[in-house]
Amino acid sequence: MRLSRYFLPILKETPKEAEIVSHRLMLRAGMIRQQAAGIYSFLPFGKRVLDRVCRIVREEQDRSGAIELLMPTIQPADLWRESGRYDDYGKEMLRIEDRHERDLLFGPTNEEMVTDIFRSYVRSYKDLPLNLYHIQWKFRDEVRPRFGVMRSREFLMKDAYSFDIDFERAKTAYDRMFVSYLRTFQRCGLKAIPMRADTGPIGGDLSHEFIILASTGESEVFCHRDYLDLHVPGEDVDFDDAAGLAEIVKSWTTPYAATDEMHDTAAWDGLPDDQKIAARGIEVGHIFHFGTKYSEPMKAVVTGPDGKDVPVHMGSYGIGPSRLLAAIIEASHDENGIIWPKSVAPFDVGLINMKPGDAACDAACDDLYRQLQAADLDVLYDDQDTRAGVKFASMDLIGLPLQVIVGPRGAKAGEAEVKVRATGKRDTLPLTAVVGRVLA
Amino acid sequence: MRLSRYFLPILKETPKEAEIVSHRLMLRAGMIRQQAAGIYSFLPFGKRVLDRVCRIVREEQDRSGAIELLMPTIQPADLWRESGRYDDYGKEMLRIEDRHERDLLFGPTNEEMVTDIFRSYVRSYKDLPLNLYHIQWKFRDEVRPRFGVMRSREFLMKDAYSFDIDFERAKTAYDRMFVSYLRTFQRCGLKAIPMRADTGPIGGDLSHEFIILASTGESEVFCHRDYLDLHVPGEDVDFDDAAGLAEIVKSWTTPYAATDEMHDTAAWDGLPDDQKIAARGIEVGHIFHFGTKYSEPMKAVVTGPDGKDVPVHMGSYGIGPSRLLAAIIEASHDENGIIWPKSVAPFDVGLINMKPGDAACDAACDDLYRQLQAADLDVLYDDQDTRAGVKFASMDLIGLPLQVIVGPRGAKAGEAEVKVRATGKRDTLPLTAVVGRVLA
Repeated sequence: MRLSRYFLPILKETPKEAEIVSHRLMLRAGMIRQQAAGIYSFLPFGKRVLDRVCRIVREEQDRSGAIELLMPTIQPADLWRESGRYDDYGKEMLRIEDRHERDLLFGPTNEEMVTDIFRSYVRSYKDLPLNLYHIQWKFRDEVRPRFGVMRSREFLMKDAYSFDIDFERAKTAYDRMFVSYLRTFQRCGLKAIPMRADTGPIGGDLSHEFIILASTGESEVFCHRDYLDLHVPGEDVDFDDAAGLAEIVKSWTTPYAATDEMHDTAAWDGLPDDQKIAARGIEVGHIFHFGTKYSEPMKAVVTGPDGKDVPVHMGSYGIGPSRLLAAIIEASHDENGIIWPKSVAPFDVGLINMKPGDAACDAACDDLYRQLQAADLDVLYDDQDTRAGVKFASMDLIGLPLQVIVGPRGAKAGEAEVKVRATGKRDTLPLTAVVGRVLA
Repeated sequence: MRLSRYFLPILKETPKEAEIVSHRLMLRAGMIRQQAAGIYSFLPFGKRVLDRVCRIVREEQDRSGAIELLMPTIQPADLWRESGRYDDYGKEMLRIEDRHERDLLFGPTNEEMVTDIFRSYVRSYKDLPLNLYHIQWKFRDEVRPRFGVMRSREFLMKDAYSFDIDFERAKTAYDRMFVSYLRTFQRCGLKAIPMRADTGPIGGDLSHEFIILASTGESEVFCHRDYLDLHVPGEDVDFDDAAGLAEIVKSWTTPYAATDEMHDTAAWDGLPDDQKIAARGIEVGHIFHFGTKYSEPMKAVVTGPDGKDVPVHMGSYGIGPSRLLAAIIEASHDENGIIWPKSVAPFDVGLINMKPGDAACDAACDDLYRQLQAADLDVLYDDQDTRAGVKFASMDLIGLPLQVIVGPRGAKAGEAEVKVRATGKRDTLPLTAVVGRVLA
């Protein structure tokens, strides 16, 4: 993409309203724009990162055997009256009346609707296990939305829902998502630590939050240092191996880890001081087992092997990709801007033409642009006639993993510089070696 | 994907509520489920087609130089008060009040919001032309939603918005989208005919609807037979060549074509009878040039080359991917079910194991499944223990372009049948030749 044809509105000033670094950087890098309190547009650069994150989330959901569908944003209130949550949910639920005075709502979550889908079609235990997920916009009318997309009112959520015949199998479904989440966050460049959690309005008795450590985190968290070195399962993890999954989950839930709400000071005090990490954390995922909480009132039953109808055991599993963007930036930035992990970078490489209009420089850059694209790389090509300082600062701010810099002298000498954003390290290379270096 | 692990709830009975064939087939093939009047879930099979259609739409928008962003579903009412449309829009607009009693609405379209984004960042004619698009859920509270996703209340829309310095350049932006739409619909397997159209609540003076001919169409249309043979531009069309684009648009707007509303009976009567097509049509896209209708009241101005501020000339361009699914089915089905054009088929091929449990049959099918996947094909593998009649009827109903059928006798003889869904033609082939045949 040529910058001259792109829409990347970089802000020079630091916006005053932004209290945390990710919010500041997302505004400055032209990723998002606030349209109303807690409601954001994702500008083209932000949309690209969102797509990269969603792709990882989707690949890992699919790998674990979950199946994607897409439920609507607007839901009928009657479904929520069936589960009993319509009145419970309070003012966070955005309630709507249509032209025929029917009660609707903008879905804050989808337990009711997916249970309704399940009961409409599934009759037998033979059709289980089943895990259905979607990636759809949700709305929660927070009293005080803040921190940009970290705590917005309209936000993107991947929510998965598992259905099983009994607790034991539901626990395996839970383990499957647990392991899938470990992989998802790692692929996004994050170190996420699962912590026992309160279940809140979703309900149930077994729940983990996945928390990343960040000084700007919303809550205090406590965990054992062992978490920093625990192994995240590889691509070859067998999601059909219930015992193997349980083993992994055990290893990830044995060392001490707790959010403020669930903190056990006695257990904590028993740990050696040099093994303790007390820090602030950001929740990036939340998984729940709640058994028959929805299937019983909503009569989502299947016929078991013995011919008897039983309500299905369910769990739900959420990741907010829009919030994840902010969390990734909180975890990966420096004083000059964002540092995208390669896996979620909106472009693989930035190509800087230091002197558009200079024939040698243009020719070298145009040629590199073609070569890099031919190597299947996403390239952002700064072909604009701006000052060197602006070019460097902008490219650092938006945080692409690699920069290829071509000036008129280098172009004449047949050379370019390759800069690694994370380390600042620069190498001068022959133009012919650039693509190989970028691909390395 | 193994059918035993998939969620494809096929209905045996024809649903009574469905008045048109696409609605009937989408319900029967387990593609959609109604959650409230005019509000649908896309079940996994439907979601896959929606993704395929969106990918084509996106590729053709990108090819034409439009840039993708993502605006939220919920909009502040104040923006619409600025343009004057808040009161005009009537009961089709879903109006919402949040917990702080601020007026919001679920966006039925995005002219106001995108104009707001534009005026916030763009100052100079040098940043033009610009075309921003997104693919996002919209809501229009129709009095009588019907025909499934053909006329639903919540629907997916790709809407693009162009910004230019004057009418001439805005006309080129219009031509660019016009040509992009011709390509988009052709790639979806549709023959779409552009017809002069009313502009309705969007406003403006230049507008075309893209209409496909279908006996179940919502409106009467009239066009010259020449349209059936007109050339659709190839991938190599140059979107920077204003004159070339104008030429293409001219060739596609010269023969007579009109919807009922714009019909000119005098011109029509002048055509030779054997050149006339009077039929019913389905609108699958709508493009508008409306100049400064929004930029003037909302003060979206840029500084021109002469240093003077001028309001930008705008157009908007819509395609409804969710509605397009239904239109594709209306245009491509037979008495047994859907016939997906290859380009949007949710799976490339269906593999039918006629006798799961039979060792030779299982071995042959499992091997073909691996081979087809290794050839980068999306395969739906019917590995379920059901009757032959059910298997054949289901596979025809869901309409994958090709079927590979393996029975116990064939497996022993080292053979499989390959069936083309569109023609019903079946060939018996050696198992070793199947992948080659499917790829051909």
